[in-house]
Amino acid sequence: MPITLPADSVGLVTPQTIQFNEPLLLACGKTLDNYQLIYETYGQLNASKSNAVLICHALSGHHHAAGYHTLEDRKPGWWDAYIGPGKPIDTNKFFVVALNNLGGCHGSTGPTSINPATDKPWGPDFPKLRVRDWVASQARLADKLGIDTWAAIIGGSLGGMQVMRWALEYPERVRHCVVIASAMKLTAQNIAFNETARQAIMSDPNFCEGRYLEQNTLPRNGLAVARMIGHITYLSDYAMGEKFGRDLRKGSFERGVDEPVEFQIESYLRYQGDTFANNFDANSYLLITKALDYFDLAREYNDDPVLAFSHARAKFLVVSFSTDWRFAPERSREIVNALMGARKAVTYAEIESNFGHDAFLLPNPRYQQVFARYLAGIATE
Amino acid sequence: MPITLPADSVGLVTPQTIQFNEPLLLACGKTLDNYQLIYETYGQLNASKSNAVLICHALSGHHHAAGYHTLEDRKPGWWDAYIGPGKPIDTNKFFVVALNNLGGCHGSTGPTSINPATDKPWGPDFPKLRVRDWVASQARLADKLGIDTWAAIIGGSLGGMQVMRWALEYPERVRHCVVIASAMKLTAQNIAFNETARQAIMSDPNFCEGRYLEQNTLPRNGLAVARMIGHITYLSDYAMGEKFGRDLRKGSFERGVDEPVEFQIESYLRYQGDTFANNFDANSYLLITKALDYFDLAREYNDDPVLAFSHARAKFLVVSFSTDWRFAPERSREIVNALMGARKAVTYAEIESNFGHDAFLLPNPRYQQVFARYLAGIATE
Repeated sequence: MPITLPADSVGLVTPQTIQFNEPLLLACGKTLDNYQLIYETYGQLNASKSNAVLICHALSGHHHAAGYHTLEDRKPGWWDAYIGPGKPIDTNKFFVVALNNLGGCHGSTGPTSINPATDKPWGPDFPKLRVRDWVASQARLADKLGIDTWAAIIGGSLGGMQVMRWALEYPERVRHCVVIASAMKLTAQNIAFNETARQAIMSDPNFCEGRYLEQNTLPRNGLAVARMIGHITYLSDYAMGEKFGRDLRKGSFERGVDEPVEFQIESYLRYQGDTFANNFDANSYLLITKALDYFDLAREYNDDPVLAFSHARAKFLVVSFSTDWRFAPERSREIVNALMGARKAVTYAEIESNFGHDAFLLPNPRYQQVFARYLAGIATE
Repeated sequence: MPITLPADSVGLVTPQTIQFNEPLLLACGKTLDNYQLIYETYGQLNASKSNAVLICHALSGHHHAAGYHTLEDRKPGWWDAYIGPGKPIDTNKFFVVALNNLGGCHGSTGPTSINPATDKPWGPDFPKLRVRDWVASQARLADKLGIDTWAAIIGGSLGGMQVMRWALEYPERVRHCVVIASAMKLTAQNIAFNETARQAIMSDPNFCEGRYLEQNTLPRNGLAVARMIGHITYLSDYAMGEKFGRDLRKGSFERGVDEPVEFQIESYLRYQGDTFANNFDANSYLLITKALDYFDLAREYNDDPVLAFSHARAKFLVVSFSTDWRFAPERSREIVNALMGARKAVTYAEIESNFGHDAFLLPNPRYQQVFARYLAGIATE
C-alpha cells in the first residue's frame, strides 16, 4: 500500500465509461446495436488536441494501465513502468487514453454483459470479434473524445496487432505507431498453444458450453490450466531457471522417504493460474485468443505485407526482445522489412532481455531509453 | 497393412511377460512384492551373451519398439526406423531387448494392475517411482534373461536418463551407453510444462482423485489436453509451420461471413490428444512425468556431474538435435562436458534437424549414419 504515491506516478485515477448507441457493423457481418467502453486517461489533452496517445492492450490487459484506483491498491496499472510523468510515455507531454477492448471482461461490453435480446449474459453468443473490430470501436472512442489524430498508438503483443491495423484502416488518424513484441500473424505453434488453452477451458464440465454464468458456475479449472500454458510461454526458459531453478517448496528426495515433492515453479504456476481464473472471463479468453489467431495483417492485401504497409502514413517504432520465443524477434524483423519495402520510416530496436515475451511489461534500461527517445521526438504542437 | 513385411523389418514379433516374485525395494522406501514386465526381443542372443542391447523408452513408449504384431498392423513399433536387420541397431548383430517400464500401462505392472492388498486397481496408490527403480527392475530382467553385461543400453529423452543411471548404478554391467536428446536434469520450464499437463489431468472431474477405474470412467479430456501440451513441445516451431502453417481445415475469413474457422493445426492437435487419451493411463502419465521431474543425475554426487560420471565404466555416444527445445543441445553438451571432465570416452553428435525433440524417432541420414557407425564399432565376441 503506497501511503504516498510515487512521484513519477500518474496518481489516483478513475475509470470512465462511454455508451455508444450507433450500431457497429462487425467483420463477421453481425451488428452490435449498442455497447459501452471503459477507459482511463492520464495527462491533459492540449488545445490543439495533438498530444493524444492510445494504448492498446494485449490478452490479459485492460483500461487500468497506470496509476492507482485507491490509496489501498497494492499494485499500480499494468504498464505503470512506462506511463507517467517523466516516464517513456510521458504524461507531462501526452494525453494518454487506455481502454478495455470490446469483448473484454473488465467493464467494456463483452460476454459477461447482458444481451438485450435475451436479458441473459451474452456468454458464447457474443459476436466473434476481429482485431479490426477493436480498431473500429477505438476510432469511435476517439471521435467521442474529440481526437481526430493520435500522436501515437502504442501496443505490445496483441496490442501491437491493433496498432498495425490502425495504420492501415485509418492512415490519416495516426502519426506514430509503436509496435512492441508483436507479429503480422501468428505461427502454427502459437495457434497450437492457444488451441490447447481453449481446449482446457471448453473441456471443463463447468464451462456448460459457455453458459456457465446462467448455471451459476465458472470453468475455473480450465481457465487456470489455460493461463498456466500461456504463462510458461510468456517467460523464457532462462528466466524461469534463474527465478526458480529446481528449488523445492516442500518434500525431500532422500531415499526411502515417501513424501510428496513440490518444486517452487509448480506452486508459482498454479498460483498464477488460480489467480487468473478468479479474475478473467472464460468466454472473453476464447474470443480474444481467436482474434489473435485470426489476425493476418496482409491477408486482404494479396498476402503481401509490403503492399499492406504501403497504405500506412504513420512512422513506426518496432521493438522486440531477444529471448521472446512466443513473438520472436524474427517476427518483428518481418514487420521492419515490410515497412522498409513500403518505404516507410521505421526505427527498430531488438532489446537484450532474459525475460521472454513478458519483457515488454518490465523495466529495462535500454528499452526505456529507446522508447523514451522515440516518443520525445514526436511533435505535439 | 503390409501384405509383405519390409525386408529390413524384424518381422512379426510376440511380446513376452516375466513374473518377478522377489520383492523390489523402491527409492521411496516402499516395496513391490511382485510384479511383471512385458518385453520383446529382436535378433538372437549369441553364445557368449555379449551382443545384448537394452532399449529404454520415453514417456509414451513401451515394449513394442520394432516389427509388427500382426500382418494387419498399420504401423510397426515406435523405433522401427532404427531397429532391424541392417538398421543402426542391427538385429543381424545384436540381441535387442525392449520392455515396458514398471508403472507403465502397456502390460507391465502399473497403476491399472490389480493391487493384491485390495483386489482393486492400484490407481493413485501405485508407489511413486524414480528412474533408479526402472533401472533396478531392468537389471532383474537382465538376470532372468541371463545377460550379465549389456553390449549397449540405448534411450532417448527419459530413456536417456535411464541409460545414464544404469552407467552409475551398474557400471560393470554396461559397455556402451547411447544417450539421445536427453538431460541430466530438467529445467524449470520443462517441469512447468509437466506440471501444467498434470493439472489438466487432475482437474478433470472424471479423474476422481485417481480412482477413475473404480468409478468406471476415464479423465479423457484432461489427458487429451496434457498430450496436446506435450505434443507442441516435442515439435519445433519450424516443423509445425512447414507442416500446417496457417492452412485452414474449414471456414473462411471473408468479411461478413460468420462461419467458424478452424486451422489444420487445431484439428491435428485435438486428434493427437484424443488418440492418446484412449490409449494411455492417466495415473501412469502422472507417475512418469514425476519421475522425469525428479531425475537429477548428480544429486547424490554432491551435485557434481563429473563426480557422478567418474563412477561410470561405459563408453558413451551422446546425440542431440538442433531444433529440440524441450531437451536442447545445451543439455547434451553438459553431459558431454561432464563425461570429458570424468575422463570417459564420449562421442558427441549434434544433428541438424527441423523436427524438434521428435527428431530422435524420425529418419535422418546423418543421425542414422552416426548411430550405425557407433554401434558397428561395438565388439560382440
